[in-house]
Amino acid sequence: MTTYKYLKGKNVGIIGCPFSGGQPKEGVDEGPIKMVEYGLIDQILEMGWNVEFDGHRKLTDLKPADDPNIGRLKKPRYVSRVTKAVADAVESNLRRGQLALTLGGDHSLALGTVSGTLSVYPEACLIWIDAHADINTPDTTESGNLHGCPVSFLLAVDDLIQKRVSEFSWLKPRLRPDKLVYIGLRDVDPPEKEILKKYGIKAFSMYHVDKYGIGKVVEMALDAVNPKRDLPIHLSFDVDALDPTVAPSTGTPVRGGLTFREGHYICEAIHETGLLVSVDLMEVNPSLEDEVSVFETVTVGCSLVRCCLGETLL
Amino acid sequence: MTTYKYLKGKNVGIIGCPFSGGQPKEGVDEGPIKMVEYGLIDQILEMGWNVEFDGHRKLTDLKPADDPNIGRLKKPRYVSRVTKAVADAVESNLRRGQLALTLGGDHSLALGTVSGTLSVYPEACLIWIDAHADINTPDTTESGNLHGCPVSFLLAVDDLIQKRVSEFSWLKPRLRPDKLVYIGLRDVDPPEKEILKKYGIKAFSMYHVDKYGIGKVVEMALDAVNPKRDLPIHLSFDVDALDPTVAPSTGTPVRGGLTFREGHYICEAIHETGLLVSVDLMEVNPSLEDEVSVFETVTVGCSLVRCCLGETLL
Amino acid sequence: MTTYKYLKGKNVGIIGCPFSGGQPKEGVDEGPIKMVEYGLIDQILEMGWNVEFDGHRKLTDLKPADDPNIGRLKKPRYVSRVTKAVADAVESNLRRGQLALTLGGDHSLALGTVSGTLSVYPEACLIWIDAHADINTPDTTESGNLHGCPVSFLLAVDDLIQKRVSEFSWLKPRLRPDKLVYIGLRDVDPPEKEILKKYGIKAFSMYHVDKYGIGKVVEMALDAVNPKRDLPIHLSFDVDALDPTVAPSTGTPVRGGLTFREGHYICEAIHETGLLVSVDLMEVNPSLEDEVSVFETVTVGCSLVRCCLGETLL
Ligand SMILES: [Mn+2]
Ligand SMILES: [Mn+2]
Ligand SMILES: [Mn+2]
Ligand SMILES: [Mn+2]
Ligand SMILES: [Mn+2]
Ligand SMILES: [Mn+2]
Repeated sequence: MTTYKYLKGKNVGIIGCPFSGGQPKEGVDEGPIKMVEYGLIDQILEMGWNVEFDGHRKLTDLKPADDPNIGRLKKPRYVSRVTKAVADAVESNLRRGQLALTLGGDHSLALGTVSGTLSVYPEACLIWIDAHADINTPDTTESGNLHGCPVSFLLAVDDLIQKRVSEFSWLKPRLRPDKLVYIGLRDVDPPEKEILKKYGIKAFSMYHVDKYGIGKVVEMALDAVNPKRDLPIHLSFDVDALDPTVAPSTGTPVRGGLTFREGHYICEAIHETGLLVSVDLMEVNPSLEDEVSVFETVTVGCSLVRCCLGETLL
Repeated sequence: MTTYKYLKGKNVGIIGCPFSGGQPKEGVDEGPIKMVEYGLIDQILEMGWNVEFDGHRKLTDLKPADDPNIGRLKKPRYVSRVTKAVADAVESNLRRGQLALTLGGDHSLALGTVSGTLSVYPEACLIWIDAHADINTPDTTESGNLHGCPVSFLLAVDDLIQKRVSEFSWLKPRLRPDKLVYIGLRDVDPPEKEILKKYGIKAFSMYHVDKYGIGKVVEMALDAVNPKRDLPIHLSFDVDALDPTVAPSTGTPVRGGLTFREGHYICEAIHETGLLVSVDLMEVNPSLEDEVSVFETVTVGCSLVRCCLGETLL
Repeated sequence: MTTYKYLKGKNVGIIGCPFSGGQPKEGVDEGPIKMVEYGLIDQILEMGWNVEFDGHRKLTDLKPADDPNIGRLKKPRYVSRVTKAVADAVESNLRRGQLALTLGGDHSLALGTVSGTLSVYPEACLIWIDAHADINTPDTTESGNLHGCPVSFLLAVDDLIQKRVSEFSWLKPRLRPDKLVYIGLRDVDPPEKEILKKYGIKAFSMYHVDKYGIGKVVEMALDAVNPKRDLPIHLSFDVDALDPTVAPSTGTPVRGGLTFREGHYICEAIHETGLLVSVDLMEVNPSLEDEVSVFETVTVGCSLVRCCLGETLL
């Protein structure tokens, strides 16, 4: 039986974020809606959790009438307002001793979730499961889509802070580079590679998963950011970390990803630490593929969440 | 070259068991028939084994005219009579120094195969490869299908013995909990999980396969039940241990299973011990899927059997 | 940053070999053409290599008017002339300090590529990635297809040398058995198994990949043939080493192969040594499957090549 070091009992607050403003493809806002329709709330209740969920956030209400690009960044005001609201929601959940579970929506939402977590637990580490590093800066992003940038905004690094746009001045960059670790990378832009190197950010690409096996990789990842296994953990899981054969209905699939089993292993193993305080499940987009593929992607999203909350095989 | 500690030469007695009485789906009785039609006997002959096979057992002759449920258990008399006959057949093969190879049919047949093995080799260990634990008791089974119960009937544990129904009084529960090990579990009922914990039964779920790799898992499994590598081994292989992408045509497929390679690895590695005396290959059901999927399932069943009998890649 | 011990800078000479004479299926000669059409040259240029490529070789010009079998061997004169020309091309590239990259075409081409490499670097080791051992002799080959025989012609072993046909007298067998290692084997003929055993050739079948994981297997392979990590490496990669789900469009696919990730891992890890001097990418056959499968096979061929040349995930 896992004991939760930072939670007051098995209480989870679910933050449903139907939001697609951080990238160009419609439909990713339907991700959290489909996961809840599929029965995720009941599944979590059946696992013995007390669930707080008051319906999905009305995030489109925050859409500004006018939102021109800032430099290359697209929809910066909309993303800023939404992620500020999400940060507040996560913070509120955590202060009440709940596990904060955020269902996206695109990965720009992590601007909110991670800063919400760090405002309550400044010592928390961040485990980022993704095919992508999402660490472009306003200067390096080619697409201008903010779902490719959140990590650079979160890092407490002078160089990166100076690049940020004033629109996000609410966001305090509290994440130390040595508290961040990636698993699953396989499509990283050249300037992103430079940033990872420059700040010595620990990253396990699929190469490392093959070299060491997923069991060892999770252990090494925890050793890197949580060596004494005593710090709170924020897990941000982009479903495109999984192989497209496992989670096809997502905006930027990349071949050679995590297997169904490896994805679940990560969630189980991190849950086992008892240190998880905040979980994001992002980038399920139920409008990109045929019905079967959508169903597979939604169900795998739900089962990853359940594993994060303690579902085990034995 | 493997030397066989318990066999008198390379002699195998094949027991074809077209039987579906331990579960509700028709067609699993066709499993052994299709495997033989596919050429399994000749394949084994070509590997240098002397094969005894007198055609499939006429198990439907044992069907009682009337067979009402006993408690929740369905078709208890039919399953009992069939598995008693199978136990006798396995025992007879083993006494003559043959390897006993049983082709199912549903997994309730293991009531017969394992008790047949244990009557000749009481010290034998049991390696159970399955997505399921098949360890429900007459009390805990929800479905009443006996293919989900055989292990609880076999265990030499007072609590479990008391739960058994008199219909199976022929079956002597000789299996010590420390002689049983599972590999491949991923769909275990809550009461089954309790039984596994209560009796300290060693089980490697898919989580462990991911954590350690299949090579290490097989080694740990053998260390658990056969630490000196000197005891006879009964291998009971439910084809649903494999991922549904590998063996789709089976009654209770579960996502996230063993790969094609892992399944064969297990069989090769256990063969290598030279200790195998009895093998079951169960739950191939050639009527559940399209022709290609059925063919894949039948052929993978046959190649697993061949690996158990010593087919190697090098 | 990898430093290349045996190259004069990042220079690669590409030898396009549209050749199918070593086996019976038409279309494998289109492999190199499709890889170049797909953009492989530009991809390599973008990676910062200087590329020498003057178009594909006109190998059909070397086809003899008459080419009866010699013993069982089919098209021996044609294969001999072509592989002699390829050997000269590889030798020329290597002497100028280039990495020799040969795009096949069927695997009989390795008669040329490997002997070209060994004429410049007699101490080089050979890493052969394949579902097959391709080590049949003129006596043991059942099909007579020379793409199943190249390794036996290359080995500096008296017994094997005596079996060779005079048509290949240009080829000096310089490969010591302890300088050859296989990865990926899973369809090896019985006489091939005997040859591997007789000469103590190190081979890692899929069984070993499962047992140890691909990371450890590559390390063990290098330990076997290049223990001090100081010798030049020739990598001969038959795309059928990959699982047919990954590289379906190849002449002799075999189930249970390397995953997409494992294939790329091998190439990345061998590149990392800085010792690679010669690479073959063989047996892409764009005419055997539907358009999607062909595209997948061609693209995976190209990405394997790029990994050999230093493309990494991070
Ligand atoms: Mn991503
Ligand atoms: Mn992402
Ligand atoms: Mn089962
Ligand atoms: Mn079973
Ligand atoms: Mn091959
Ligand atoms: Mn080959």
